[in-house]
Parts: sequence; C-alpha cells; structure tokens
Amino acid sequence: MATTKTGASLDRGTLDTLLRRRLFYTPSFEIYGGVSGLYDYGPPGCSLQQNIVDTWRKHFVLEEDMLEVDCTMLTPHDVLKTSGHVDKFADWMCKDPKSGEIFRADHLVEEVLEARLKGDKEARGEKVVEEEDEDKKKRKKKVKEIKVVKLDEAVKKEYEETLARIDNYDGAELGQLIIKHNITNPATGGALEPPVAFNLMFSTSIGPSSNLPGYLRPETAQGQFLTFAKLLEFNNLRMPFASASIGKSFRNEISPRSGLLRVREFLMAEIEHYVDPKEKKHPRFKEVADTVTLKFLPRGIQEQGKTTTVDKTIGEAVKEGMVDNETLGYFLARIHLFLHELGVDQTKVRFRQHMPNEMAHYAADCWDAELLTSYGWIECVGCADRSAYDLTVHMQKTGQPLLVRENLEVPRVWEEWDVDVDKKWLGPRFRGDAKKVEEAVTKIPQQEREKLAGLLKNGEKVMVKVEGLGVVELEKVIIEKRQKTQNVREYTPNVIEPSFGIGRILYSLIEHIYWTRPDSAERGVLSFPPRIAPTKILIVPLSSNSEFTPIVTALSHKIRRAGISNRVDDSSATIGKRYSRNDELGTPFGITVDFQTVKDGSVTLRERDGMKQIRGSQEEVVDVVKGILEGVATWEEALKKFGESKGQELDEE
Amino acid sequence: MATTKTGASLDRGTLDTLLRRRLFYTPSFEIYGGVSGLYDYGPPGCSLQQNIVDTWRKHFVLEEDMLEVDCTMLTPHDVLKTSGHVDKFADWMCKDPKSGEIFRADHLVEEVLEARLKGDKEARGEKVVEEEDEDKKKRKKKVKEIKVVKLDEAVKKEYEETLARIDNYDGAELGQLIIKHNITNPATGGALEPPVAFNLMFSTSIGPSSNLPGYLRPETAQGQFLTFAKLLEFNNLRMPFASASIGKSFRNEISPRSGLLRVREFLMAEIEHYVDPKEKKHPRFKEVADTVTLKFLPRGIQEQGKTTTVDKTIGEAVKEGMVDNETLGYFLARIHLFLHELGVDQTKVRFRQHMPNEMAHYAADCWDAELLTSYGWIECVGCADRSAYDLTVHMQKTGQPLLVRENLEVPRVWEEWDVDVDKKWLGPRFRGDAKKVEEAVTKIPQQEREKLAGLLKNGEKVMVKVEGLGVVELEKVIIEKRQKTQNVREYTPNVIEPSFGIGRILYSLIEHIYWTRPDSAERGVLSFPPRIAPTKILIVPLSSNSEFTPIVTALSHKIRRAGISNRVDDSSATIGKRYSRNDELGTPFGITVDFQTVKDGSVTLRERDGMKQIRGSQEEVVDVVKGILEGVATWEEALKKFGESKGQELDEE
Repeated sequence: MATTKTGASLDRGTLDTLLRRRLFYTPSFEIYGGVSGLYDYGPPGCSLQQNIVDTWRKHFVLEEDMLEVDCTMLTPHDVLKTSGHVDKFADWMCKDPKSGEIFRADHLVEEVLEARLKGDKEARGEKVVEEEDEDKKKRKKKVKEIKVVKLDEAVKKEYEETLARIDNYDGAELGQLIIKHNITNPATGGALEPPVAFNLMFSTSIGPSSNLPGYLRPETAQGQFLTFAKLLEFNNLRMPFASASIGKSFRNEISPRSGLLRVREFLMAEIEHYVDPKEKKHPRFKEVADTVTLKFLPRGIQEQGKTTTVDKTIGEAVKEGMVDNETLGYFLARIHLFLHELGVDQTKVRFRQHMPNEMAHYAADCWDAELLTSYGWIECVGCADRSAYDLTVHMQKTGQPLLVRENLEVPRVWEEWDVDVDKKWLGPRFRGDAKKVEEAVTKIPQQEREKLAGLLKNGEKVMVKVEGLGVVELEKVIIEKRQKTQNVREYTPNVIEPSFGIGRILYSLIEHIYWTRPDSAERGVLSFPPRIAPTKILIVPLSSNSEFTPIVTALSHKIRRAGISNRVDDSSATIGKRYSRNDELGTPFGITVDFQTVKDGSVTLRERDGMKQIRGSQEEVVDVVKGILEGVATWEEALKKFGESKGQELDEE
Repeated sequence: MATTKTGASLDRGTLDTLLRRRLFYTPSFEIYGGVSGLYDYGPPGCSLQQNIVDTWRKHFVLEEDMLEVDCTMLTPHDVLKTSGHVDKFADWMCKDPKSGEIFRADHLVEEVLEARLKGDKEARGEKVVEEEDEDKKKRKKKVKEIKVVKLDEAVKKEYEETLARIDNYDGAELGQLIIKHNITNPATGGALEPPVAFNLMFSTSIGPSSNLPGYLRPETAQGQFLTFAKLLEFNNLRMPFASASIGKSFRNEISPRSGLLRVREFLMAEIEHYVDPKEKKHPRFKEVADTVTLKFLPRGIQEQGKTTTVDKTIGEAVKEGMVDNETLGYFLARIHLFLHELGVDQTKVRFRQHMPNEMAHYAADCWDAELLTSYGWIECVGCADRSAYDLTVHMQKTGQPLLVRENLEVPRVWEEWDVDVDKKWLGPRFRGDAKKVEEAVTKIPQQEREKLAGLLKNGEKVMVKVEGLGVVELEKVIIEKRQKTQNVREYTPNVIEPSFGIGRILYSLIEHIYWTRPDSAERGVLSFPPRIAPTKILIVPLSSNSEFTPIVTALSHKIRRAGISNRVDDSSATIGKRYSRNDELGTPFGITVDFQTVKDGSVTLRERDGMKQIRGSQEEVVDVVKGILEGVATWEEALKKFGESKGQELDEE
C-alpha cells in the first residue's frame, strides 16, 4: 500500500489530478487526441526537472571533474548494430490477425492471468481490492468480462508462479504460455499469432537518398564510448576518468503504461567511469566507506524468494564482496547521497542487485536504486559494471584504438619460449602456404614449445599441425627460452555506468513528498526541499488595493536580483486559496504584502509545511530564505529569532 | 574579410583546428566515418553551451516570468500537417539518375556559376582569392575542373545577378536555370532530373503498428502552441504572457555545410509571446526605448541593393513605424542586450528586416539578428510576428478553443438588422430544404438587410437566393434594427516569436572573441567573458613536487565550494605551455601554486587577456574572481589593490 509523506494512504488518482491541474505535466498533443507514452512538462515540472538536473550536475560532474559531452540523438545504423541494439533491444509482441490489434506479449499474459485470479477470488466470495491505478483500470476494461469462475488449486498455483516470473520469459516461452492457458484477444476472443520480436528503437533515414538508415538513440552511452579516445587525450591521458551526458533518449514502447514511469521519450543522465580492469579501487572511497549505510537487496536473498533488505555500510558491502569493487561501491554511495539531497524518502529506497539472468552477458555486476511508489518498486538509477564490452566491440568494428597505453614505471620482464623458423627454408619449401605455417607456429602454446624444445634437443623431429596441410615437419627451427621486456602496457578500460532516469526520479520524488493537510484530504501539499522546489517564493498582496502594486513589483525585482525565483499571485482569490494553490505547487515560502507593509515596509514570511509566519523587513525576510537555500540557516532558527507572527490568520478562509 | 577580436585577419582553418584539438566540438561518429551535419560537443563546448543557455534562461525566462515548458520532439503527422510543415518545409533537390547522386539545387547552381566566374577571372589573368573555407574547398574539388575560359560580358553579368538572387528561386525557376546554363553533375557531366521538393523533416513511426506516422520536430514552437489554453489558465487567464522552451530540433539537410552553422540536429531556445492583436504595446518598453541603439538594415535599404545599416534607438524605430510594434521592438532590444552579455562584438551585429518574399505569408513583420562571421552574415536569432496563424489553424483543425475570453469593463453596445423568418411557415413550406433557406438568410449582409427592410415597408416582396433552390420569396418575415450588447470579447492572440539558434550563436561568438598573441599566430586565445567561459579557473602547480599536491587538492575543493568551476593541470608541461593550452580553452583566470605557497599559503592569480598577475592569500584571490563573476568588481581594481606581481615570468618558456 503506497503512503504519503505523513504515512497516510496515497490516493494516486487525487495526486494525478493535482499534478495535471498545476501543469507539472500534461499528455502531449492532447488537443489532437494525445499520443500514449508522450508527456510535456509544464512550468513547475520543467523547473523541477531543471533543478534535479542542476543538482545532478553539481553532485557528479562538477564534484568529480567529469568530462561532460553532448552527443547527437540521431545515430547511424552501424553504431547500434555493433553495440547489439539492432539485434537485441526488443520486446515480444503478438498480433490478432483479424482485428489488427497488437499486444505486448508479457503484459497480455499478465493481465489475463490476473483477471482470472480475480474472478476466482470473487467466486470464492473473497474481498477483491479495487484497482487504484487509472491506467490499469482503463486497460482492464478491455478484458471482456471477468468470468467469476473458481479455479482449480493447481491451476491457481501455476498462474501465481507464472506471474512471479513474468519478466523472465522469452518469446518462445510466452508463445507456449499463450497456447497452454488459451489466451486470446481479451476484447474479441480472437486467436493470436505467435510472439515476434519488435525492436524498440525509432528508426529514420538520414539525408535525402534513404541510404543512411539511422535510429534515435536508446541511451546516451554509445555516443560517449565513441568519443573515448578523444576524451582520454583531453584528460592528458590520465586514468581513471569519467565522461557524463544529460539528454533525451527514446524507446518505442509497444503499449506504454504507468504514466511518467514508462514513456517513449525521456531525459537521462549517464556517467561512464573508465577504470583499469586490474585496479577498480577509487581514491575517494574512504570518504563514504564508513559513513554511508544503504539498504541492500542482494542476489542471495532474492534467490530465497525474499525481499527483506539488509543495512550495511558501503565499506562492509565491498569488503565482504557483496558489491563487486570499490568504484562500483563508491557510485552506489554517491547515488544514495544524491537521492537524499533531492528529498527522496530514505525508507523508500533500496539497492537491488541484478540476478544473473537479468544482466547483459558482459556485465560484471549491476545494482539498481529502486524507489517505492504506488506502482511498486521502480528502477530509477542503474549502476552497472559493463566491463570492457562496448569499447571492445567498437574497436573491433572500426579498427580504431579505444585503448589506454600506460608507461610502466618498472618495466615488465619475463621469460618466454620463442620458435624461430628459418625463412630461407620456409619460403621455397611451402611457397603460397608459408604464411599458414607461420601462423600455426605462432599459435603453439608455451607449454607445447617447451616440450618441442626437449624433442629438438634429443634430435627428434619437430612436427606441427597446419590447417589445410596436415602435420608437417619443421626442419630449420630454433626453440629457445628468451628474456622479454615491456615498457608500455596496453589495456581496454572497464566501464562503471551509473545511469539515471530523470523522469522516473522526478515522479517518484513527488509521491514521496506529497501529503494532505490533516483537516482536509483535498488540501494537497508537495513538500519539496527548498532547493529543489520549482519556485522558491510566492508573493501575495493582501488584496487588489492599488497601493500594493508598486511594492509587489519592487519586491519581486529585488528577490530576482538575489537569484531567487519567485512568482506573484495578485489574483482575486482569497489569501488562503492562493496559499493552497501554492502548497500544490510546492512553493516553500510565501511573502504577504499588507497594510503594515505600506506603513513600514515590513512583510510576513510563511513557511509551507508548518504554515507558521514571521514578520520582518523585506531585506531580513529575503536573507532568511537565501540562508535556507544556501544551506547555512534553518526555518527553526528564523522562527526563534523573529518569533511567530500571529497578527493575521491568513490561512483561515 | 573576417577579422579576429583584435582586428587581424581571421584564419578559419587555424581556429577550426584549435576548436577540434581542445574538443569544443567534434564530428559525431567520427570513428565510423562520421555523418555530415552531426556534431558532438566535448567538455568545453558542452560547458559553453550550458552557460549560454543559463544566461538565456535568466535573461528571458526568469526576468520576464515566462512559462517554460518542455515538449516532446516526437510529433505526430497531423500536427505538422496542420502547421504547414508537411507541405512546405522543403528544399529543392536534383538527382543524377545515372550515378544516383543527389544535389541541393540552389547550392549546385551557385557552385557551378561561381566556378565559371573563377575560370573567367583566371583566363583574364586577374588574381583569384584563394578559398579559405575547408568545407567549400572540399566541395569545389568535386567540380571536375574549372575551365579557364573567358565569359561573354553579358553572360558574366547574368551569372552575377543570378548568384545575388540565389536564395529566392523556387523549384521551377531552379530547373530553368539548370537547363538554360547547361548545368550537369559537376563530377561526371551527367544530365540531371528536374528539381523536386525534399521535405526536411526526419520521419519515423510511433508505436508498433506503423499506423501513427510522426516526425522529429523542426521547431519547438508547435508544442508550445498546442499547450496554449493550459498555459493561459495556469497564468490565471492573464494576458499578455509568454511561454518559452529550450530543446533540440531537427532538419534533414540535403547536403549540410558550414560546420556548426548548418547541422541536422540543433539546440533552439524559443519564446512565444502572446499579445492582444489590438494592443501590441509592452509594459517594459520604456526601459529600453531610449537607451538601446541597434544597427538596423530595414527593407527599404535592401530594396536599393544596399547593406548600409542605420543606427537608431529602438524607441525611434518603433515610433517611425520601421519596427511594426512595441512588443516586437522590446524583444529586439532584449535580444541585443542578451548578445552583448554573451560577449558578441557589437560592431558585428545587425538587425535585418525580412523582405516580403522571405516571410511566411502570415507574418506581420520579421527581423533577424545577424552576426558577422567568416561565413558572412549569419542569422542567429529570428524575431517574427507570426500573427494569429498557428493558433487559428490548430483551433480550426481540432475544434478546441485556443482563444482568450476577456470580460469587457464597458460592454460593447451596437445596433444591427435582424431578419426573423417565421418557423411555422418555413418548415411546412420548404421541408428538408428549410435549413438551406435559414442559412441563406443568416448570410444576408447588413447593407442588404436594410434595403430589404425598405422593400418590406413598401409592401414589396422579399426575395433571397438559396443554393440549389434558386431565388425564393420569404413570405412570413420581420426585418428590424435592434440593439445588441456584448460583455465578453473573444480573440485569438497574436504571437511574437524570438527564436534563438544556440549553436549558431555559440560558433559566431567564438569567432568574435578569438585572437592570437601579437608575438605568435600560433598562440590562440579565446577571450570569453568570465561568466560565459567554460571553466573559470585553472589551478597550476609550479612543478610535480609532491608538496604541492595537498595544497592543490584543498584549493580546488575550496573554489568548488564557492560555486566556481575549476580544473587542475598538473601535467608535466611547462607552466607557459599549460597557460597557452588554457588560453585556447578560454579559461579567464589561472592560479599558480609555488614554493611561496608552501611557505605562506599565498598564490598568484593570472588574468588571461593581459597575462598580468597579482599575488594574495587564497581567500583574497578567490574573492577577486568571485567578485568579477558576480559583476561587482573588475580585474583592473584588483590589479590596483594588490599591485602587479612580477616575481616569476611564468609565461616565458
């Protein structure tokens, strides 16, 4: 059961209405009927998004001297073919050939089985919890009619087990489930074709001749990888280092749902931190090792079918090997601190480790920061060790060196068996096949060479198997152990990738800081931390009296000059109504200009959450807000200093 | 001839090499061979772009309380069909059917005629100025061989006139020019097909069933227009107001050229300021009317074939009607102030009015802020009065009221002739055609009604023409003059649209503030104003002495805490080389940590442009930079206060 900031039960419908009414977001192209999975941010949503991005940039890019880049979204086919997206970035869909309707296969199986289980419950007279989710309700309506039929115990159990594993089936398995459970088009009962893969990238064509196919990027990462060599040089060839990028990515969902949580166009912030695969330590790990405690949901616990989290410092988690390495651990801690700074409810965050079957085959370890919302636990940040996979495949494809060359302070010295075949003998003897023989010689492993050296010493023949030629004798050959020296080490760095879905964080944060005044469920409040709030100060003239106008204009100007965003509400609504409206916008402070202001310039300052007010000069009041925004003062201190002002009961209507 | 900041001739090749070496930008997907018209920004370019966007947001959005929105780039077909982009957003292209090559028709004609004129010059033994432009050079190579042939005087004149008008030809005219001047594929001599329109939008398909065609938006404006009604309500129904949006837009150029100035994916910042068409005054116009002087290139001067600008205050320009209205004038002045704040060279800005044939048919007036670069005068900001066009077409298409309803303080009262036909007579007399008759009656103009009333009074017949029925008599009819009252006025607002190409501004700015040290053309400097510079401070330890390391780390941390971006360069290059590198990055200040620092904590602060240094405590030095960034202090004041420090001639190598 989802809860508000104050622990009351969260009514998502009411919150959603509030967010649309206050224009945090709105379906795109609504007057044209809308397009599912596309949303616009209105002024408060846009400002909130901007504040989250600014905080992110300060917390990660500036704090760690990351190299921020801005790569294009348009991406040619070849790049995404190499990265594997053309072949693997897909969901399974089923078509009803009669009606032409298309279903996302896993969602369809889920909905039908859930509906049947619900019908079973009703048949048994058990209480059916009403679906809170508007979105789901709408989709459920399509399920013709829930048959109130009791299910066999075995069938029921099978359904439940299938639902628990619904994210893990591939296309063939989903096809089998559809046949086995006789799943059809829920609206018409029409038979479905077997699931086929649908690539989730938006495709387009670059240039006029249609011969350069391209896609809208599914992640910002690939552009960063392709710039690796230039960034390394920009960084004076120093390792480790990180690049970062903030920008839109795209995913052509088959049937988007869950509001802002699953959309077709979304803002991402991604970091690619390059490390030496042999040395995944992090110089700043000690700053977080003992001080940051996370709620972990590691693989082992999930394998037991449980979801109980364990609290550990990140230092312990790395030490005992639960988290693979220091750099990964450092970023998990930094992600935690970032979410904390945004105002995310710390009891509603967990770090869940990916199960082996969830991870890409190349990933060494992967953890998701999940936030608890009314949609369940939502993956908002992924933090993966992508190993050397991406740089390797791009290097193989392009032949460009996406490598680090490191001068070794102490040259590496070792001994090795060399096999030298006399070229003057080799050429005439094998002619066109000489190269094949040479290659075969190169491939003889060290152990084998040692053995061959022994044979040679004993005057025996040295035989080698050559592809296409069979076993041949090497007549003129020297096999010796020699000393080798290497001054430069070459390696492909590994990548630790923290990847943030800004829209998901934004929405989950709103659910965490939303609450309603105890006296009325209709008085919603969004308690953003002041630094994150879309607007910082609302200026409210007591009435439309013309004496207030020049004071309000000058005050607004003064506050803006101090770098603090503010809005004036001089509408004819009551003061109480105007403050309620701004509670919904999450504006942390309100300044009222009243008749006392006309006399002595003083104003009242109201704090959103406690609704208490102080009275002071305009300069004093602006300084209070500035101090709180800069983190050097608190509202409690201001209350103590100025005393609560009870002159006007402005919140009473 | 393009010039640097100091008036020397600008070598674009050298500047371009610098910008790529310092990773301001780089061709996207370069290791895959690149895609023309797509560029990535590296760390300094990304940071510069961010600072320009931040300045824009403060200067426009915050200063004017604009409603910022973030709309999706994916846009369904219907929206762009209504806006006219599906039918009209196109360039003309010609195909060589043999080779399959495609040419942008106007560019092809331009290149071939220019090449012929060059051949003529060579034949006459005149000096041919070498083409500076790498990009153009490359394309010119494709022009098989410039024939060194003298041209007829009349032909020469015709070529020159055609080139002067090259932007104004439509497809048919370009086709005629190609035939008339015998223009073929320059590389092969192959004949070309007639020009056809190529739509410049990138198309894609939204969702799995391919039945929702869409495009990547060509401008942010349409998303803003569609949200108009919601934004008006958010603004408490107050007019005028403006929305604003910063985001990427797309244009599928046939053959992109001119580097960052003509790309396929670009960042735009657009404002849609909604005004009452009857009242295009602006409340803050008086703040700029007499104080802001612009260089205007109005229509009249252009019609004379001249490009001399006239200097006028914006107050004068509006008063004499050269600029259509106050709101348009206010924004021109604000655009000027914005460009000034960025550091654009004021002698290289002009405001050019669109010629009637350049404007969209619905535009009332349009001015471009053009910046002078080595590519010529470049349109960087457009400022158009789009009239009520967009809101009107979207309203007609969707039936949604994109309107302002204004309560009239004094109700509008007027007299009007009404024609009432007795329905009891009408129905039985005309049956199924009754509605047609009613419609015909509604359409009778006022003047005609007055005439009919006269006839009726004289006892004559009242005849009306009805479509499909011919002329019929209205038997039971009353025609009277009656008093009407209207309390609410409804109107479609007009839109003033300042639209900024951020990439174009960024590149032009770089050309304006680039110069080379007098002693060496290789020592390039980018003199960004400190607030716009990608990084503010470079910290340089004198050598790799380990005593410096903790001081440098602590200092960097301290500066970051003060909110100032900084980078450390502890590479082994000489101090002079390190400062040269940062001159190229445009970093305005450098702090050197030397042995004196180890003794007493003091450091030197170097200013980029003058290369003078002061010495002070770390706190003092950071305060100097902070003061300059906040606009409350100057470098000259600091020099006076601390005195020039000449202890070490660090810039000598």
